[in-house]
Amino acid sequence: MQLATRRAYAGKVVRVDVDTVRFPDGSTGDLELIRHPGAAAVIPCASDPAGGDPTILMIRQFRHAAGGPLWEIPAGTLAPGEAPEACAHRELREETGVTAERIERLTSILTTPGFTDEVIHLFWAQGLTRGAAARERDEFIEVVPQPLSGVLAGIRSGEVRDAKTIVAILYMAGFILGL
Amino acid sequence: MQLATRRAYAGKVVRVDVDTVRFPDGSTGDLELIRHPGAAAVIPCASDPAGGDPTILMIRQFRHAAGGPLWEIPAGTLAPGEAPEACAHRELREETGVTAERIERLTSILTTPGFTDEVIHLFWAQGLTRGAAARERDEFIEVVPQPLSGVLAGIRSGEVRDAKTIVAILYMAGFILGL
Repeated sequence: MQLATRRAYAGKVVRVDVDTVRFPDGSTGDLELIRHPGAAAVIPCASDPAGGDPTILMIRQFRHAAGGPLWEIPAGTLAPGEAPEACAHRELREETGVTAERIERLTSILTTPGFTDEVIHLFWAQGLTRGAAARERDEFIEVVPQPLSGVLAGIRSGEVRDAKTIVAILYMAGFILGL
Repeated sequence: MQLATRRAYAGKVVRVDVDTVRFPDGSTGDLELIRHPGAAAVIPCASDPAGGDPTILMIRQFRHAAGGPLWEIPAGTLAPGEAPEACAHRELREETGVTAERIERLTSILTTPGFTDEVIHLFWAQGLTRGAAARERDEFIEVVPQPLSGVLAGIRSGEVRDAKTIVAILYMAGFILGL
């Protein structure tokens, strides 16, 4: 149970709170927590998944945190008041230029609950129509269509390293496609 | 490419740097990054996985970030100079009381590369021997043995929400056990 909180740092993106918490044994202590508004990520399925090996629009994105480009699926932070599914539609459009007819929820994850409350809601999109991307100034993104089998091979080999991307792809492949 | 860095916040656990970065197009900008020393997480397999549905020692841990308990696998931050595999052995022992004969690497993930460089190295452990746990003062952990099929059902239903746990279990189940 949270007894008190103070904002210890407020940057452009990152906000750190120090919360005073009552633990399950009744003792109390201070915990640092990065407050995050939540995010949505979406697998763009460019062909019928019933075919067995659908084409995924993967993105290759420059990430300073990784010291270079990462394989990811489109994703972004929820705008104030924005529903996760609306965010998935918007980020898909902005990052790949694609509009989706249908978006279905897969699951939601806590990315790293030891120090942040960030939740990412995971979706997959079908019925895609191409348009123009509208990236933010500091987004460097290349769209790379790949068969699902190729993405799974990249996860197996360790080339795909982004947690939300691995969870979304393995969840879809395992539980929806029954691979 | 990183051109400069300044420490914007240094707490007990969390350190925020503001890095000046040259982007792929030659422009520059400031990016906030939570610096993390890295971590290891390990699936404790309490019975022979070749049997088809091995018993996993899951942990149920109080997480302030989640507002309650979460289903997880044992994990923790690398000590200075500690190898990921040694950290996996240590955290397994401290959080569950179990010693492992063999620990094998599954893969490594970036938990949320939009704002932290945290990498978690994922392992699975076999040949377990029971001993006494040695938890830290603010760790509230219950060890709950479960069949792998039960953990997979929890992932499917959304009851298991921790990203590192989902990646480790689906990776092991999909790629090693061939489910």
